[in-house]
Amino acid sequence: MSNKIRLGILGGGGDSLIGILHRIASSMYDKYEIVGGVFNPVWEENIGFANQIGLPTNRIYVDFDKMIEEELKLPVSERMQVVSILTPNFLHFPMANKLLENGFNVICEKPMTTSYDEAKILQETLKKANTVFAVTYTYTGYPMIRQMRQMIADGVIGNVQKIDAQYYQGWINPVIHDDELRANTWRLDPEKGGISCCIGDIGTHAFDMLEYVSQLRIKSVLADLNFVYEDNQMDVDGTVLLRTENGVKGVICTSQIATGEENNFIVKIYGEKAGLKWEQENPNYLYLMQDGEPLRVLKPGHSYNSEISLDGTKLPPGHPEGIFDSMANIYKGVAKAVNGEKYDHGEFPTMIDGVRGMSFIEKVVESHQKGNIWVEI
Amino acid sequence: MSNKIRLGILGGGGDSLIGILHRIASSMYDKYEIVGGVFNPVWEENIGFANQIGLPTNRIYVDFDKMIEEELKLPVSERMQVVSILTPNFLHFPMANKLLENGFNVICEKPMTTSYDEAKILQETLKKANTVFAVTYTYTGYPMIRQMRQMIADGVIGNVQKIDAQYYQGWINPVIHDDELRANTWRLDPEKGGISCCIGDIGTHAFDMLEYVSQLRIKSVLADLNFVYEDNQMDVDGTVLLRTENGVKGVICTSQIATGEENNFIVKIYGEKAGLKWEQENPNYLYLMQDGEPLRVLKPGHSYNSEISLDGTKLPPGHPEGIFDSMANIYKGVAKAVNGEKYDHGEFPTMIDGVRGMSFIEKVVESHQKGNIWVEI
Amino acid sequence: MSNKIRLGILGGGGDSLIGILHRIASSMYDKYEIVGGVFNPVWEENIGFANQIGLPTNRIYVDFDKMIEEELKLPVSERMQVVSILTPNFLHFPMANKLLENGFNVICEKPMTTSYDEAKILQETLKKANTVFAVTYTYTGYPMIRQMRQMIADGVIGNVQKIDAQYYQGWINPVIHDDELRANTWRLDPEKGGISCCIGDIGTHAFDMLEYVSQLRIKSVLADLNFVYEDNQMDVDGTVLLRTENGVKGVICTSQIATGEENNFIVKIYGEKAGLKWEQENPNYLYLMQDGEPLRVLKPGHSYNSEISLDGTKLPPGHPEGIFDSMANIYKGVAKAVNGEKYDHGEFPTMIDGVRGMSFIEKVVESHQKGNIWVEI
Amino acid sequence: MSNKIRLGILGGGGDSLIGILHRIASSMYDKYEIVGGVFNPVWEENIGFANQIGLPTNRIYVDFDKMIEEELKLPVSERMQVVSILTPNFLHFPMANKLLENGFNVICEKPMTTSYDEAKILQETLKKANTVFAVTYTYTGYPMIRQMRQMIADGVIGNVQKIDAQYYQGWINPVIHDDELRANTWRLDPEKGGISCCIGDIGTHAFDMLEYVSQLRIKSVLADLNFVYEDNQMDVDGTVLLRTENGVKGVICTSQIATGEENNFIVKIYGEKAGLKWEQENPNYLYLMQDGEPLRVLKPGHSYNSEISLDGTKLPPGHPEGIFDSMANIYKGVAKAVNGEKYDHGEFPTMIDGVRGMSFIEKVVESHQKGNIWVEI
Repeated sequence: MSNKIRLGILGGGGDSLIGILHRIASSMYDKYEIVGGVFNPVWEENIGFANQIGLPTNRIYVDFDKMIEEELKLPVSERMQVVSILTPNFLHFPMANKLLENGFNVICEKPMTTSYDEAKILQETLKKANTVFAVTYTYTGYPMIRQMRQMIADGVIGNVQKIDAQYYQGWINPVIHDDELRANTWRLDPEKGGISCCIGDIGTHAFDMLEYVSQLRIKSVLADLNFVYEDNQMDVDGTVLLRTENGVKGVICTSQIATGEENNFIVKIYGEKAGLKWEQENPNYLYLMQDGEPLRVLKPGHSYNSEISLDGTKLPPGHPEGIFDSMANIYKGVAKAVNGEKYDHGEFPTMIDGVRGMSFIEKVVESHQKGNIWVEI
Repeated sequence: MSNKIRLGILGGGGDSLIGILHRIASSMYDKYEIVGGVFNPVWEENIGFANQIGLPTNRIYVDFDKMIEEELKLPVSERMQVVSILTPNFLHFPMANKLLENGFNVICEKPMTTSYDEAKILQETLKKANTVFAVTYTYTGYPMIRQMRQMIADGVIGNVQKIDAQYYQGWINPVIHDDELRANTWRLDPEKGGISCCIGDIGTHAFDMLEYVSQLRIKSVLADLNFVYEDNQMDVDGTVLLRTENGVKGVICTSQIATGEENNFIVKIYGEKAGLKWEQENPNYLYLMQDGEPLRVLKPGHSYNSEISLDGTKLPPGHPEGIFDSMANIYKGVAKAVNGEKYDHGEFPTMIDGVRGMSFIEKVVESHQKGNIWVEI
Repeated sequence: MSNKIRLGILGGGGDSLIGILHRIASSMYDKYEIVGGVFNPVWEENIGFANQIGLPTNRIYVDFDKMIEEELKLPVSERMQVVSILTPNFLHFPMANKLLENGFNVICEKPMTTSYDEAKILQETLKKANTVFAVTYTYTGYPMIRQMRQMIADGVIGNVQKIDAQYYQGWINPVIHDDELRANTWRLDPEKGGISCCIGDIGTHAFDMLEYVSQLRIKSVLADLNFVYEDNQMDVDGTVLLRTENGVKGVICTSQIATGEENNFIVKIYGEKAGLKWEQENPNYLYLMQDGEPLRVLKPGHSYNSEISLDGTKLPPGHPEGIFDSMANIYKGVAKAVNGEKYDHGEFPTMIDGVRGMSFIEKVVESHQKGNIWVEI
Repeated sequence: MSNKIRLGILGGGGDSLIGILHRIASSMYDKYEIVGGVFNPVWEENIGFANQIGLPTNRIYVDFDKMIEEELKLPVSERMQVVSILTPNFLHFPMANKLLENGFNVICEKPMTTSYDEAKILQETLKKANTVFAVTYTYTGYPMIRQMRQMIADGVIGNVQKIDAQYYQGWINPVIHDDELRANTWRLDPEKGGISCCIGDIGTHAFDMLEYVSQLRIKSVLADLNFVYEDNQMDVDGTVLLRTENGVKGVICTSQIATGEENNFIVKIYGEKAGLKWEQENPNYLYLMQDGEPLRVLKPGHSYNSEISLDGTKLPPGHPEGIFDSMANIYKGVAKAVNGEKYDHGEFPTMIDGVRGMSFIEKVVESHQKGNIWVEI
């Protein structure tokens, strides 16, 4: 009998990229065993997918409610311990809420819910449940991001005086200029995508990341969103001015119509002693910039890195790890929490990150709609 | 007898970096001969500097007014044809104005004046003078910037949908945290530096550059400036939201407290067909990004570049030219204008760039002071 | 019951990095299930490791011979289908040979054997066995390497006129200058490491890679090896001149004393129409250089890539995959072969690569020992 | 009267790139004044070019011999002090020799002569002349190359254990495959280009550079040259194994058929304490690699650089200087020598560099012709 954590999966079947990402991430540290779930609402596809990925079908369920019902009949020692929610966004909240109410640990894709109100309810549920909850802001799992956070916490850059994130993609460019493609893109449909596209999808990553690495709280935002066409209801680009609780200023620049950009997420934190810079597309480099000193480029796996960074690297320097490894580190952190082992607060994003992310989205949209004014988060 | 253009220099003596930049730039295409000027208000240093750079001293003058007086006595065929103004900012306007009134062609360092009002007066003077006037937004002289402008003009990226510039330096970081250093930095003294430090010094470069490459006019700005300390009166960092006349949105991010950054000026223009990106610290690369196509990296000197780009490159590909070459291209353009040769509007920044730059500075400061609201340029 | 391929593992227990690499690689495409093996010759560590990675212990065996014996008692439908050999080098040959003789498919770490003679015997055994055999030249699994190979095969660069690989590491630098460290490094001990360190460990990667991407056969070598100290018996650096069967010249530069280098493996192939370049530390970029054309940078996941490249990418462009993904592609290819599916010759390195690699090592050493003369492979 | 050094120029007229390079380099530090010379053997073009670059024509001479004759008639205080030789290679020796015999200081383009024998004669002439002689291995003037040399001299990397240079260009690729183009390329004609094309043109740069930065003497070479076509008499590619006097090994890889490469010259020196790397196409970065330390990237103009590096930078960090600045530093060094000022041995390449470069070329060709054997320089 395996002693791995029993993992259930909701969604992520078929060609789902997020499904691949979570399955691989869960396997990387030999900590999880996928035991079942619901991959697809259509039964044939659900069971077909389970076969395709070589999974026994005895715990593949017809739907979410049935899964909960049946799993609860199992003894605790056999029951799913963690359930990962990879479904469309509007299902995150009801599923997560019910899972928490029934004592399951939950790993939830972002955005955590479709509204701040839902997020607050979920937060309350978690308080009563006392289980582990993680929201997968994937990029926080990168070793050099963890190193960046730790260096800032250790005072390497001194007091932070500027926070800055750029997150530019171009994938909506061909869509936005083509009526048919646009109509078929769920992210551009407010019914399915919620109140925001660009901010909701990638702006939240930038927001969470700035708070993650700096450990500062962003207090207010002033946003200008960009819809390109008047008949487009969803933002596809936007700039957000920031102020933190302690008065630091900053900016988040996001776009999904930055034509030709892939997934160009850049994080920069400048302090009175030094600056730190990181780029997602080349994630194994962390740049330390100091007045009058040579630029230092830190890379994963070296002993000069902090414990939390090294814990997230599996191979020696020069063997590039990537985004699967980043998500795997989040799963690893959750495994520690589930197993009652010691772990650092930075090892996985939690409910508070999810709640704040939802607040950020709503306040950014509010700032824009009210004419680009400052709004408190 | 040399047939070069007779050039006079005002300022730029001693260790002045801007002096070196202009002297070298003027010499690169064998078009100019420095014949005299006023390098320094102190006579001994003035004459000493002339000796140091190997210049005959017969046309080194005791001050600006004397220079005008004496030069006007010379026959036109011997008189200075172009005068470069490299003095502290507050002298730009009176010198340029008098030079234009007396029929000299002028190359003026930026910021062109200390206020928008002065700029408007200068513009009027130029109209009457009918001579050549250039303001040295140096970076527009880079071959790959000229290529970027031409490609946008040629429709390579289609309609522009986003303009974006980042200009980050760190040199004020050690200054701002040290009271004594701060007191001795003229740029942080409103008496000497005018109403703005960061926006006035580098924000204008970003503003001019975005207009230069996109050939769009920025119509309104919303700015949040950053002074770091309450007792610091001058902005050292700031973000400016932009809207152009035709409704394109954009952003300028600037900082002089981006600790450890050197002169990190990045220009990005995204169109419906492609994106273009350029970085000043590695100026010989222009990145063309297209949906679903390999990234293309254009470099100077190749025949695939446009005429205006190739005209600014002196050596074959792979022989890196730099910032002196960039300024030299501006001098080359002015030489064409002075000599009555055909030249392209993009070959040197003109009065209109100077005037708009001054307006930008004032409107940004106004936007900030009024609580981060939209202000029209 | 899972329909995954039943995988056995030999070696790779404890902190073994190669163990992690193979386990993760085997899991990534949901194609394999690890069912047992021998992780360690010490029983307590063997069984302890199986527990640690959450593996049922019923098919953890006391040693290799016992494993063969017991597995053969199982019905074919339950028996291990593939066995991965991750043991110290000297065990590769006897294990692989016996596995093949008994009808198992084999994935073997490199170097395949400790001598060319062993390699030839193994090749004969495989001919009789008619099973699948792969040797894990990991880097050939990178999507952009596969793209490079395909582009060359498609004639994109025309006739190849120069092949060039550099493989520089620095990890032996601190070892070679410290007698105690040196004595404790098995790779520097001819008893354990065979006749070559640098060439055997990384030179073979370079050799195999050049043949893989160019599909040319290297025919003769002239080598100069470097031992740094006279009392060091193993090469830690070396340069090898190359000639292919069709007369193309080339060079392999390798070092393990290139101080500060991590795993800097660069592959360059120049043809009469274009050049291609790839760097292992930034594996998601493939550079296409053409006379008088902008540099093109190809990245994984784009539809402009060939089928064999796209088959090895799991996420959209901009989501960096790494070395685990590279090895996973080799496992995926082997899975296709084992399952009788169609696959391309380039999907995994085979016996012929292993045999040629062993020949390369021996001939390079021979060339050096005979005074840097040309030797035929 | 200017107190600049009076400079004469031989060759470099018309569209000559080397002419532009030297003229600009001579002007950059305000140290030289071009007073005359012979730009072209055709009088009309000679005088026309002088006019074109705005030079008085009174000291433009009909030919070299006339120039010597007339200049010697002038008082020493008016006579040319330095003469730069930018003519076709075969004229370097007779011109330099006569100039030295007549007491002129000489700056000579590389290759210094067309044979080692000529080089030795020139060396003897210089001994008697006791003037200043420089050969323009341009790249040694880059500030970060000077920094590299100084750091090695200061022991930053410890004892050198590996020297490595790659110099890849692609410009001969389109030529070599086209009979007509090939016939019209003087570098591929032994009558005009001497005994070697690739080694003579760029291999010598690599050789001189390795000796310059490491201050080691290369003692023997083993070379394999590549002619691509049998009917091509000149090497267009080649690899040279190296051994220094103190037993360090190394390699020079050169090519002019590395299709699509521009001027990709990379210099790497590895020592027992650290490694240093520099790339000509991005000359403002020097990479310091140390075991277990973050990569350090040094840039010009920072106070952490050595005096000889800082002396070669004119602007603050972040303002990229380029190849003109590099050559200007060589001219600056010569000016110091001519003016009797203190200067460092590394400020310009001298006769010894020229002589050794010619020996290198001849020995490399000899090694190749004798079947790729070791030959002593």
